[in-house]
Amino acid sequence: MNDKLIYLDHAAATPMDPLVVEAMQPYFSEKFFNPSSPYAAGVAVKRDYQAAKARIAQVLGVVADELVMTAGATESVNLAFQAAERTVCAVATIEHASVLSAAGRYREAVLIQPDHKGRISPEAVKQALAPDVGFVSIALANHELGYVQPIEEIARVIQVERERRRSAGESTPLLFHTDASQAAALLDIKVKRLGVDLLTLSAAKVYGPKQVGLLWVRPGVHIAPTIVGGGQELGLRSGTENVAGVIGFAEALELAAKRRKAEVKRLQGLRDAMIRKMKAELPEMIISSDRKKSLANFLNISFPGLDAERLVFLLEMNGVMVATGSACAANSGTRSHVLSAIGLSASDIDGSLRITLGRLNDEAMVVRAAEFIIQSVRKEQERIK
Amino acid sequence: MNDKLIYLDHAAATPMDPLVVEAMQPYFSEKFFNPSSPYAAGVAVKRDYQAAKARIAQVLGVVADELVMTAGATESVNLAFQAAERTVCAVATIEHASVLSAAGRYREAVLIQPDHKGRISPEAVKQALAPDVGFVSIALANHELGYVQPIEEIARVIQVERERRRSAGESTPLLFHTDASQAAALLDIKVKRLGVDLLTLSAAKVYGPKQVGLLWVRPGVHIAPTIVGGGQELGLRSGTENVAGVIGFAEALELAAKRRKAEVKRLQGLRDAMIRKMKAELPEMIISSDRKKSLANFLNISFPGLDAERLVFLLEMNGVMVATGSACAANSGTRSHVLSAIGLSASDIDGSLRITLGRLNDEAMVVRAAEFIIQSVRKEQERIK
Repeated sequence: MNDKLIYLDHAAATPMDPLVVEAMQPYFSEKFFNPSSPYAAGVAVKRDYQAAKARIAQVLGVVADELVMTAGATESVNLAFQAAERTVCAVATIEHASVLSAAGRYREAVLIQPDHKGRISPEAVKQALAPDVGFVSIALANHELGYVQPIEEIARVIQVERERRRSAGESTPLLFHTDASQAAALLDIKVKRLGVDLLTLSAAKVYGPKQVGLLWVRPGVHIAPTIVGGGQELGLRSGTENVAGVIGFAEALELAAKRRKAEVKRLQGLRDAMIRKMKAELPEMIISSDRKKSLANFLNISFPGLDAERLVFLLEMNGVMVATGSACAANSGTRSHVLSAIGLSASDIDGSLRITLGRLNDEAMVVRAAEFIIQSVRKEQERIK
Repeated sequence: MNDKLIYLDHAAATPMDPLVVEAMQPYFSEKFFNPSSPYAAGVAVKRDYQAAKARIAQVLGVVADELVMTAGATESVNLAFQAAERTVCAVATIEHASVLSAAGRYREAVLIQPDHKGRISPEAVKQALAPDVGFVSIALANHELGYVQPIEEIARVIQVERERRRSAGESTPLLFHTDASQAAALLDIKVKRLGVDLLTLSAAKVYGPKQVGLLWVRPGVHIAPTIVGGGQELGLRSGTENVAGVIGFAEALELAAKRRKAEVKRLQGLRDAMIRKMKAELPEMIISSDRKKSLANFLNISFPGLDAERLVFLLEMNGVMVATGSACAANSGTRSHVLSAIGLSASDIDGSLRITLGRLNDEAMVVRAAEFIIQSVRKEQERIK
């Protein structure tokens, strides 16, 4: 990327790490064999594929056969909802479009409201657990605020309800799914710690290839495949395996796990430097992301009365790339349902920028970006005065 | 690949063309932006993605907005069957596992039998078109025999039935889908010529990336998405676009189209040289693929009484890679349903090899391969005598 560009939208897309590209390369034109073919070269590719799944599984603290490899988080989420079968779903109002759309296919969905910070409290989940609710889906970290939900506590609430049902002789199952796509680069995603039954991941958010993802399915949980055919992925997702993609995913996840601690600290520093600089010059700035509870790379800010799309445009003239919300939502031209759910006014939402830092950023860059934001905001304030 | 290896399984997997890899490379770590993002760099990626779709569309003689990009042929086939809605499906008994599995999800499926060469006759389709049949799916070229079906004639039969229904005031729609994945490297796939309503393609079979495919949908045909979310691909297939993959697909398809004529001729020559050599030494060899009507690269042969899996093993010791059937079927350890449908006995089927030639082969290689096949067959014949 051009040296003058400052990319602050790592939640929308991440560049593939050079080590990831390198790991994938041999599988493009040399080890290109179909993993289901009978000769040794094909069997070797199958083994490499399985080894990559095992490496991914280790990052999650699970075994390879519990992973269904998919073409990205959206497919994984859709597949996870197959486990809901004919029960009622409960999802947070601030979920990503994929979760809301998948839930929308069911006859009914219970919506769980966050508090003003974006937190989904275990109490709110508890209240949502009517006897006919069979499937709960809450992202580990929200895609606009980066807020990290108390998934472990929520899992305990769900476990208590499960036990109540068992004692009461009720037969409705209760499953808990989390989309950990945004969180995976910066949080420990061991499923045992989280206590969920199904977990979605995306390679594209952890400096891996696009359209590669997975669904982890706890043993014993039944899901019906959305894509049927040759019976790959233990029959849960047919289609010739994306060998290069899955090997890239394994490399990307391991790198993320290895660099996690240092990277979190580094990004917190960068984020705080930005906040300090901007807050000093623009005290009217609203910060919607939580400094303690949001992912270290998320900074959601708002300038009431301004038009964020104009800010995006002004910033871009200086090489700074930021988003007004999630890429999907921005594209549809609708107002962020996430910021609305945490109580921001229409005017606050319209003046909101989502800044997400990452590996492409360093201190000098973010300070320069903060300066450009200050300039652009002042310019816009002048214009509409 | 090692110079001593002779890869004769191009129907199972193709190596990515170096030009395809080159075309994809910039989109891994440089132009990695989310195509839905608002800044110019993202918009440029979106434009590149759309341009790639337009290039693919041109090969098919359609427009880009009629293409739904997917994660491969299996997903495309599953998506195509969404158009069947609640009607009865009619499929050939010799279809790929993905088509048979997708059809198997419906309450009923009419099975159409091929003749002894693997041909699905327009008459057989006509007879299958009961008034409640709403969806027909027949591959352009069969995945084990390479037999090229008379799709245009079948399309006319379907058109006649459509008109009959219209005149009779019957409301059951009738749609025609073809999986052209195996055919695309060597046949003209203009949809206007074929006369179908839906067409599946796979990049992995035309020297492009794995897990990239498409479904062409004739304007006016309604399909419900299998994967919902951010609303990409005009709402028919959500998930952040596989930018690199689709650009690689465009490059691969254009290369195939450009090289098609010469390649068909070249492969016919190679195949015929193999046949001549083997037939002279092994007159008992049965050839199940049709020299005129099968794709130029397909050669399905059988040695009654022998165990093809042992032949695969012996050939591999000499570096020759062949399949006993499709990779999916081989993996499941079941007897080929295709060869069974065209009337081969169990013994003939068990002694069958699928040889599929391609860009990795030249004259010297295939002659050497034929020699190894002759040796291996003789060795096995000796052993069981």
